[in-house]
Amino acid sequence: MRVLYFVLLLLFFQSIPAQEKSGEFVDLTYSFSEESVYWVTAKEFKLEEVAKGKTDQGFYYSANNFSTAEHGGTHIDAPIHFADGAQTVDQIPLENLIGDAVKIDVSDKALKDPDYLISPKVIMDWEQEHGPIPDGGIVLLQTGFGQYYPDASKYLGTDKRGPEAVKQLHFPGLSVEAAEWLVTNRKIKAVGIDTASIDFGQSQNFATHVALMTQNIPAFENVANLDQLPETGFTVIALPIKIKGGSGGPLRIIAIK
Amino acid sequence: MRVLYFVLLLLFFQSIPAQEKSGEFVDLTYSFSEESVYWVTAKEFKLEEVAKGKTDQGFYYSANNFSTAEHGGTHIDAPIHFADGAQTVDQIPLENLIGDAVKIDVSDKALKDPDYLISPKVIMDWEQEHGPIPDGGIVLLQTGFGQYYPDASKYLGTDKRGPEAVKQLHFPGLSVEAAEWLVTNRKIKAVGIDTASIDFGQSQNFATHVALMTQNIPAFENVANLDQLPETGFTVIALPIKIKGGSGGPLRIIAIK
Ligand SMILES: [Zn+2]
Ligand SMILES: [Zn+2]
Repeated sequence: MRVLYFVLLLLFFQSIPAQEKSGEFVDLTYSFSEESVYWVTAKEFKLEEVAKGKTDQGFYYSANNFSTAEHGGTHIDAPIHFADGAQTVDQIPLENLIGDAVKIDVSDKALKDPDYLISPKVIMDWEQEHGPIPDGGIVLLQTGFGQYYPDASKYLGTDKRGPEAVKQLHFPGLSVEAAEWLVTNRKIKAVGIDTASIDFGQSQNFATHVALMTQNIPAFENVANLDQLPETGFTVIALPIKIKGGSGGPLRIIAIK
Repeated sequence: MRVLYFVLLLLFFQSIPAQEKSGEFVDLTYSFSEESVYWVTAKEFKLEEVAKGKTDQGFYYSANNFSTAEHGGTHIDAPIHFADGAQTVDQIPLENLIGDAVKIDVSDKALKDPDYLISPKVIMDWEQEHGPIPDGGIVLLQTGFGQYYPDASKYLGTDKRGPEAVKQLHFPGLSVEAAEWLVTNRKIKAVGIDTASIDFGQSQNFATHVALMTQNIPAFENVANLDQLPETGFTVIALPIKIKGGSGGPLRIIAIK
């Protein structure tokens, strides 16, 4: 009987953390429209109306077509985006898109420096305060730039488009050293950020993408509403469009806190 | 102390149903490709390669554009698809896309009759055996036609395309009477089916769509892998592309059993 009592007591205390969660959903996704922010060289989102209104048969009917680059708005970079032979978007295991998540908020520094890079030290300092990033964790990076979306001149550093505009991109990102530190020292499933790219705007070689994606770690970009999340103790569900052989695509990403 | 013991005992028994679930994910989504099944009059999925291979800068890079109708492959019908003023796809509350689900398997009858309609009696008989559809439940309908996907001649009843092919559509669906029974007698969040439409192929007025969507109940169509689900005791997470003002769109739908 003592043993049973102990087991029951254990169950009781295990149930406490679950009860701290409110079960509230937070949509981390921007809606797609002609205002959506796209990479300066990428084909933008376009909706084409097919039908809208009452039909001859008497019922109401609304339908559209759309076209878009895989990479724009809130989207996923599948590992193959920057790593030959790595997972395409339809091949990413669902287990890698759903899990416990943490948020690292660097907005106090990044909002003062649009070329700010998150260093390994920033992550280690965050862990000193909040505990280690859990195994199988999803890491969300809050730079504060989400507040500028969809104003490209502030969010990307330029509202110009085309190959000439690439050099004018200024927004913060994850340094290659921090990406490599995460890959080497932690077992993370995915990384998300509230900017257009996990590499900072001035990147020439996209080394952060390469460091993660050669390890089959996908990235979530243009993630919305990170300011509504705590630093720890929430779950992320990130379900992308399932394009056969796709390098990425529109992502519906939510959190449960 | 007696009271505490009782509370702990209660917690213990409450934890049993949760432990029956394996936590296994089932992807209920077909991948998008030129093979995806679309309505005979709808614009099909098209992927356009933008880059694939080593860049001049030395890193690997793969990216594509794509275009599609909102309604094709595994997708959602937002309520506005058939109900003026109802929710667009970006307006559907996340709470209505996630929840306890049930599966009603009518494949024994539907596979013998491609014009089969699920009647209210079928649902009531199902409830006799499995208990009532829970409040806030998501109802998945298994006709068995999923086994034919993407062979349009078997799955839709025709591999012809265009307005002339509409009359040749033959696949089972949910009767308007059953849709109205569900709307009146149960509080369901959404309905899904393993065919191209919740209305059967021979429908002229799409009355099942209208009955559900005027109540802001969305539909999931071309849902995959329903044969891998039990009849009760699983959760569905259905996250569509968030198109501003969209009447629907590609859906990533999964189950946790
Ligand atoms: Zn990207
Ligand atoms: Zn549809």
